[in-house]
Amino acid sequence: MGKFMKSTIGAFLCHRLKQMGVNHVIGVPGDYNLEFLEQINDTEGLEFIGTCNELNAAYAADGYARVGGLSAMLTTYGVGDLSALNGVAGAYAEHVPMVCITGAPPIHTMQHAIPVHHSAADGNFSNVLNCFREFTVAQTCLTYADAAQEIDRVLRACWREKRPVYIQLPSDIAYLTIDVPEQPLTRQLQQGDEKSVAACVAYLQGSLKKAKRPALLLDMDADRLHLTEVLCELAERANIPFASLSSAKNVIDENHPLFLGVYGGQHSLPDVREYIENADFLIALSPRFIEVNSGHYTQALPSDTLYLHAFDLLQENRSFTGITAYEVLSGLVASLPEKTHQALPDVIRSKAPKVNNNFLPHEFEALTQARLWQRMAAFFRPQDIIIGENGTSNIALNGVTLPPQATYIAQPVWGSIGYTLPALLGSLLHNAQRRHILFIGDGSFQLTVQELSTIIAQGFKPIIFLLNNKGYTIERYILGESARYNDVNNWQYSQLPKVLSPNVECFTTVVHTEGELEQALSIAEDNHKLSFIELMLDPMDAPEKLKGFGKKTADFDYGPYGPQTL
Amino acid sequence: MGKFMKSTIGAFLCHRLKQMGVNHVIGVPGDYNLEFLEQINDTEGLEFIGTCNELNAAYAADGYARVGGLSAMLTTYGVGDLSALNGVAGAYAEHVPMVCITGAPPIHTMQHAIPVHHSAADGNFSNVLNCFREFTVAQTCLTYADAAQEIDRVLRACWREKRPVYIQLPSDIAYLTIDVPEQPLTRQLQQGDEKSVAACVAYLQGSLKKAKRPALLLDMDADRLHLTEVLCELAERANIPFASLSSAKNVIDENHPLFLGVYGGQHSLPDVREYIENADFLIALSPRFIEVNSGHYTQALPSDTLYLHAFDLLQENRSFTGITAYEVLSGLVASLPEKTHQALPDVIRSKAPKVNNNFLPHEFEALTQARLWQRMAAFFRPQDIIIGENGTSNIALNGVTLPPQATYIAQPVWGSIGYTLPALLGSLLHNAQRRHILFIGDGSFQLTVQELSTIIAQGFKPIIFLLNNKGYTIERYILGESARYNDVNNWQYSQLPKVLSPNVECFTTVVHTEGELEQALSIAEDNHKLSFIELMLDPMDAPEKLKGFGKKTADFDYGPYGPQTL
Repeated sequence: MGKFMKSTIGAFLCHRLKQMGVNHVIGVPGDYNLEFLEQINDTEGLEFIGTCNELNAAYAADGYARVGGLSAMLTTYGVGDLSALNGVAGAYAEHVPMVCITGAPPIHTMQHAIPVHHSAADGNFSNVLNCFREFTVAQTCLTYADAAQEIDRVLRACWREKRPVYIQLPSDIAYLTIDVPEQPLTRQLQQGDEKSVAACVAYLQGSLKKAKRPALLLDMDADRLHLTEVLCELAERANIPFASLSSAKNVIDENHPLFLGVYGGQHSLPDVREYIENADFLIALSPRFIEVNSGHYTQALPSDTLYLHAFDLLQENRSFTGITAYEVLSGLVASLPEKTHQALPDVIRSKAPKVNNNFLPHEFEALTQARLWQRMAAFFRPQDIIIGENGTSNIALNGVTLPPQATYIAQPVWGSIGYTLPALLGSLLHNAQRRHILFIGDGSFQLTVQELSTIIAQGFKPIIFLLNNKGYTIERYILGESARYNDVNNWQYSQLPKVLSPNVECFTTVVHTEGELEQALSIAEDNHKLSFIELMLDPMDAPEKLKGFGKKTADFDYGPYGPQTL
Repeated sequence: MGKFMKSTIGAFLCHRLKQMGVNHVIGVPGDYNLEFLEQINDTEGLEFIGTCNELNAAYAADGYARVGGLSAMLTTYGVGDLSALNGVAGAYAEHVPMVCITGAPPIHTMQHAIPVHHSAADGNFSNVLNCFREFTVAQTCLTYADAAQEIDRVLRACWREKRPVYIQLPSDIAYLTIDVPEQPLTRQLQQGDEKSVAACVAYLQGSLKKAKRPALLLDMDADRLHLTEVLCELAERANIPFASLSSAKNVIDENHPLFLGVYGGQHSLPDVREYIENADFLIALSPRFIEVNSGHYTQALPSDTLYLHAFDLLQENRSFTGITAYEVLSGLVASLPEKTHQALPDVIRSKAPKVNNNFLPHEFEALTQARLWQRMAAFFRPQDIIIGENGTSNIALNGVTLPPQATYIAQPVWGSIGYTLPALLGSLLHNAQRRHILFIGDGSFQLTVQELSTIIAQGFKPIIFLLNNKGYTIERYILGESARYNDVNNWQYSQLPKVLSPNVECFTTVVHTEGELEQALSIAEDNHKLSFIELMLDPMDAPEKLKGFGKKTADFDYGPYGPQTL
């Protein structure tokens, strides 16, 4: 069992978070968590960042974990954690590991069903935890007796499963002293069983040797399981083309000579589809097909596809368990010769669209979506963190080839509008050295607008593009093109930075024409202030891809007797 | 079973909402609910009101139901309804009936576990409903076969239990035609069993006759069950003094000659406590004692207290079921002589504090909490709807005697900060004729600020007081008086109306002194614009009651070894 030392429960939790590489706890104070906030303040290297509300805290923690590997959120019981639940569910859907800590009522009230504020005053203290049970992989309400073990159990599950976990810390036990293990908690995972890994590697080696059309297909877990480097190495050593689902945008460099393109059933370019669906050795890294990344379920992977997950490999009638994806992939890599210069496979023609670096602006022409994204493609730089809000931004950016080492953040599966502004905050908290660029529509922006205040007050300097198209353009293409319910109030967006953070100077501007866009970009490019650029766009101007998507979505959502047939 | 007619499922749901007295559906559009939005638009007398996000929609629906008796909210699946959950839980805790409708994915995806966006892409469609199960009294995922019956079952439960219910409307069934009952659904409830009601009335009559110190004690259910008039009549006919819990502020006129005051255990004025705890006939209307309305559980009601709930009366060893509270109370009233002029019971001395209508402002003196609330007491008028946000506003307003027929809206049990601004929107939607006055602190305001946009855009003209004390003052009194975690960014609040609704003129001002307050009030008083008045207050200036409350809360929350002892 190792050696033990003394610690308060709260200090131990802080200590463990730090050991797991978390340096910020993001959240909102409340009376049930103030005592833990004091303990965070007392922990060197751990800082509390207050957000304006709890949903925003969850989104920010999600953004933090996507670049930092793991994050922590702190809320207060009931009112706080339930407000954050949608953000936690988003992290659950998109495989983002986040430690959700809530300051809970004093433990005697919970154990003896004593009604308190922030509860339904009926003595029921299981309801909030039951909600979190649905969207986290481990939950606990800490007690004096089990705190040390429970904290470690839950943090390990978070890292292992790459999904949120939930800890209730009753407010009156945080300062109690317990025995805690001296041994640090690390990001180390259980290694695979040696024989199973070897058998799996040998099997893959054998299959790969026979293959004439090998391929890799990646979904977001390639990123979440930190496999992108080893996958890239595998592709290069064995000269294997790789494709990704649209839900795995840029997890491996789209400029890579072996990048085939995006696979999505009949939504793929013909060559990509043909190659993937006829591969004779296909490792598919945890693909999850939903309607929007599969051309409405038209995916057709070969029947002998090798489905690789964190801890197993499954094929039609075969399975390897007791492995880890990392060990199997690196074992396979090690069995291959060093990278050599090989001719690229013939199929590598349908590559990602080329970026036009000679974009010529038409100075007085009104800004359009088509031209905007062409221009932005040339604005991006390697290492940028580019964040695309659901709606026109994400759809358009999916068609833009991003530079090497650029990170793309979006929420393609859960798709909660408003997610990206707080996610930007979280990503900045983890790494403000990299340039951050956010694209967000007005409808989405209004959901979580207040977090702009925190971004500015923290001194961050992202470039924020606010696409003002006066409502929910993506929905107008599905139903209700001119319906009032798709309108949003037209704010003076560019005034907001000044109002929300009067003491920090920002660069703000409103762009109507291509000429104005050029001017804005030239200022924003190497700015030492936050840039907030409002782009005026027509409500029905949209990326080409959205237009087809709208009709398809209406058919799928409303069926043959839906309103669109009336 | 009555007669049937044909209707689409969506149109029938709209029809039922209207029959139950709902004229507005508050929410946020999403692709899974656009088809139902079309059906709302097609329903005369039913209007969709879009809010900036779903939590705000839930708070607004809560405010709407508090004045209108019942409300309806519309969200989209997963991202929408989970965002609203904290607001729904608040309505559950505070007994507010709200119909939560969510546009769900097409029914075939839910029935056959097909992964879609706004889900965790794992074929699990029970998780969202499971969350709502914890905070609603009835839930359903409608199907073609059961929709008519399920809609009626769930709406009846909402009205009967005075708590939220949850309806998932799969997006592809809204336009399907079904048989629906011709008979309207109304707010009618099951009547009590005739003999049980008569027996209960007779029992109460007998007890009351023998009583020398009768009393009534009211909690918020007196309002939610629409019993305030009959309770008032009972008090007057039988000359029975009544007290209320602080969680039932002003549900019966505090200026009433029979009003004893607020009962809260050792937090009560001595006379109130003495009278209630020694009453020999005490009808207690569903009191729910939590730490903050009971002087930390020091309530001590007589052992033979008659606990009256919606559908039963319980006393030590006796119970009456098969009754309704309304029938029992009106039966008791009917058995009593008409109201006569009787001498008030001796105890009526410790009444609610008198309002000083001759407040003399000290023109150049800085605004203080103590003086602010004295002044506001004289500003209120009968019929006002006064809304007090959690924190200093609610605590201070609890000590202010409100005018007759004024309605007070707060969230004393659930206590979710940010609740009141959207609740103001909801209350205004139901009844903009009455003057609305909101008091909200800066910390709370930041959580839900965007809904100010909707309030202005709807053309409403409330008076909003923004108490700027630069952070969470209530928390500073509990722990972390000068801790950074209790600070919030200082916005230019008074600029917000212009930024969020540039085309509507509002009256905005910043008040530092008592003189400036007078000026602001004289303009706001009969204004035909929305008034937004920022009150500058010292961070540690607080109502006297808050000061004691903070220390008590810290003791209760953190226990004997908490941070305050370090």
